Amino acid sequence: MGKKAVVLLSGGMDSTTTLAIAKSQGYEVCAMSFRYGQRHALEFERAKQIAASMGVEKHTIVDIDLRSFGGSALTDDIEVPRDRSQEEMGAGIPVTYVPARNTIFLSFALAWAETLEADTIFIGVNVLDYSGYPDCRPEYIQAYQRMADLATKTGVQGKTQLKIQTPLILMTKAEIIRKGAELGVDYGLTLSCYDPDESGRACGNCDSCILRKKGFIEAGISDPTEYQSSD
Amino acid sequence: MGKKAVVLLSGGMDSTTTLAIAKSQGYEVCAMSFRYGQRHALEFERAKQIAASMGVEKHTIVDIDLRSFGGSALTDDIEVPRDRSQEEMGAGIPVTYVPARNTIFLSFALAWAETLEADTIFIGVNVLDYSGYPDCRPEYIQAYQRMADLATKTGVQGKTQLKIQTPLILMTKAEIIRKGAELGVDYGLTLSCYDPDESGRACGNCDSCILRKKGFIEAGISDPTEYQSSD
Repeated sequence: MGKKAVVLLSGGMDSTTTLAIAKSQGYEVCAMSFRYGQRHALEFERAKQIAASMGVEKHTIVDIDLRSFGGSALTDDIEVPRDRSQEEMGAGIPVTYVPARNTIFLSFALAWAETLEADTIFIGVNVLDYSGYPDCRPEYIQAYQRMADLATKTGVQGKTQLKIQTPLILMTKAEIIRKGAELGVDYGLTLSCYDPDESGRACGNCDSCILRKKGFIEAGISDPTEYQSSD
Repeated sequence: MGKKAVVLLSGGMDSTTTLAIAKSQGYEVCAMSFRYGQRHALEFERAKQIAASMGVEKHTIVDIDLRSFGGSALTDDIEVPRDRSQEEMGAGIPVTYVPARNTIFLSFALAWAETLEADTIFIGVNVLDYSGYPDCRPEYIQAYQRMADLATKTGVQGKTQLKIQTPLILMTKAEIIRKGAELGVDYGLTLSCYDPDESGRACGNCDSCILRKKGFIEAGISDPTEYQSSD
């Protein structure tokens, strides 16, 4: 029997590249996505297409209601910031931060991984390009790993520990794109924009669009993204 | 403004006693319960009654679908064990273990606490009477605390840390009952049984009922529980 991994898949570039990396390492991949009151459901539809096109073993979708807690521009009616420089993005925690989001996502992944007897969880967190989120930092992931070792049946029984892998954590956006391109990722399917229009075209001006555009330019790879302003 | 706490409330004895302790320490209490595919919804109805009768500030109910992962007698169709001795209960991890359950519950509590600007999360885990669950042990809670310190905005900004309090962790069932009685807890409202009948009467034979009965006897307090065999 092959190695099995749970991969957290949002439908964005980072998680899709992470899925490609997990597959390239020989893992049988089970993908997990969340409907958590995002303002747009498109990202989520893309996750389904990506999972189908990349041949995952299973794809589970978990409904959670983060919106009832409030506290983020991604789930509330707070304005998504636009046209910010990378310095502005780096200063402090952005309003798009969702409280404890990665902690909740990893906890569901942990439960599923334990049930599936998977040995690895992959999460596409990245600290370099965008350092504002506390739960994307290596020290956070290490602390999560330590907690997970103590939380689970396998941990207590001294069996193989579930390992959390974060292959993108120290990569730049350009490096991520080059890696994905090398592995055949179709970035046309991925959606990074915080505020796309109904047909899924990216706004081009939110923090996530700015970093994505810059990444393609630095990678020297043509950007397949459809932008609203490009017509 | 007073101190604010999130209390995880299942509707059982331990979480209800924990809620009473939080209130006795002067906290304004926000209670959080989960519908997670439990085989019976009664426990959950009790949680609502308890929250109402104990004057919590808010009570939020989070729907999560642990059932889709399987893996536990509490959410699957595995038989709940009966008439076991305390030695049998202590040997290994029981089939009623739900993968990563406390990790998921604490993660939602963390998100809510951060949004509410609460300073404390209370969870009624207990290691002494029933040591089979990995995620009820002090070392697990400590590792969770360390992870939570790094996961949150307040943690990163160096503000007051969110503290996880586990007042019952080293108490026996009898001590918990004595403490709750002293604080005026109505244990008639609480439901511990893993497999009650439709009207909410406890089976009397599952691990949880056995520990509860023994607790009342050792505490020297009369047991208000309605058992199925008592008619």
